[in-house]
Amino acid sequence: MELKDYIYNIESVDEKGESLKDVTAVFENGNALKLCVKQMTKIAKKLKPTIIVSPESKGFILGASVASKLGLGLVPARSPKNLSREYVGEKYLSHNGDSKELAIHDDAISKGDRVVIIDDKLSTGMTLKTTANLVERLGGNVVGIITLLELTDLNGIEKIKNYNVYSLVKDTLENN
Amino acid sequence: MELKDYIYNIESVDEKGESLKDVTAVFENGNALKLCVKQMTKIAKKLKPTIIVSPESKGFILGASVASKLGLGLVPARSPKNLSREYVGEKYLSHNGDSKELAIHDDAISKGDRVVIIDDKLSTGMTLKTTANLVERLGGNVVGIITLLELTDLNGIEKIKNYNVYSLVKDTLENN
Repeated sequence: MELKDYIYNIESVDEKGESLKDVTAVFENGNALKLCVKQMTKIAKKLKPTIIVSPESKGFILGASVASKLGLGLVPARSPKNLSREYVGEKYLSHNGDSKELAIHDDAISKGDRVVIIDDKLSTGMTLKTTANLVERLGGNVVGIITLLELTDLNGIEKIKNYNVYSLVKDTLENN
Repeated sequence: MELKDYIYNIESVDEKGESLKDVTAVFENGNALKLCVKQMTKIAKKLKPTIIVSPESKGFILGASVASKLGLGLVPARSPKNLSREYVGEKYLSHNGDSKELAIHDDAISKGDRVVIIDDKLSTGMTLKTTANLVERLGGNVVGIITLLELTDLNGIEKIKNYNVYSLVKDTLENN
């Protein structure tokens, strides 16, 4: 079994042109999810994290699975409207020019926490870079970033090149 | 440790009046998440599921954790704009009167699948009822519904009374 067999091209994109590769089928298949979580957990464990942070929403699926395996908490990075307590937030432009904001509860990360960020995709890198910034503003130390799929032609790695970045599968948008 | 200690009242609600109790702190604490996932997994296991289904987005955190523990797939029920393949969808009115739609990839559930639905909250029951309808339209058998928090005064249980429903914590909105 190979994870890439469960990463589908999307024939028709939404009006915002997002998500030209979709990893949802990895989650939907028990063996694929198990393999993906096993590989991510192995990488994460070596980084000795004290907490996992994942951007919404698909990141939650992988981040929570790994956090549960390691007995750690999962801190969601979300739109502030979905948070309930005090938070730190940061606005950024998505690759299609939309203004977005991600935020983390400000008591969810402690100074000195060793944070592994987990998401489904590394596309432009803006979501992951913003998430890392939030962690650092709260005094956390980003010890690694793990994604299931890196779309190498979007060159998002450039934005997070100062971190240890691990992607289970690398592909290009052109490879459709 | 008690899970209810990590369920916070929300002082100020958003413009839509949603989420007067928030469970995010359960996810953010490693011990609380572990306890919650352990309790849910124990219940789920007895129901002998073949797949887990969770509505977006907080449901993903608990559903994926339990699915990973049991070696099962996690099927997200989401807004159709977030899905990439053919789906079945159903519109419903949320408790504040907004029209929403949930959808599931139509190849993600097989006829005869034993489905456990996992979400963070049972509020009005509309999200869970809609999710159950989608599963059944695809031939799946909803063998149980598990939530972390049931808000009993919203009486959502009435909408899903034909199912086996398990909630780890019961509380009321009035109990603020």
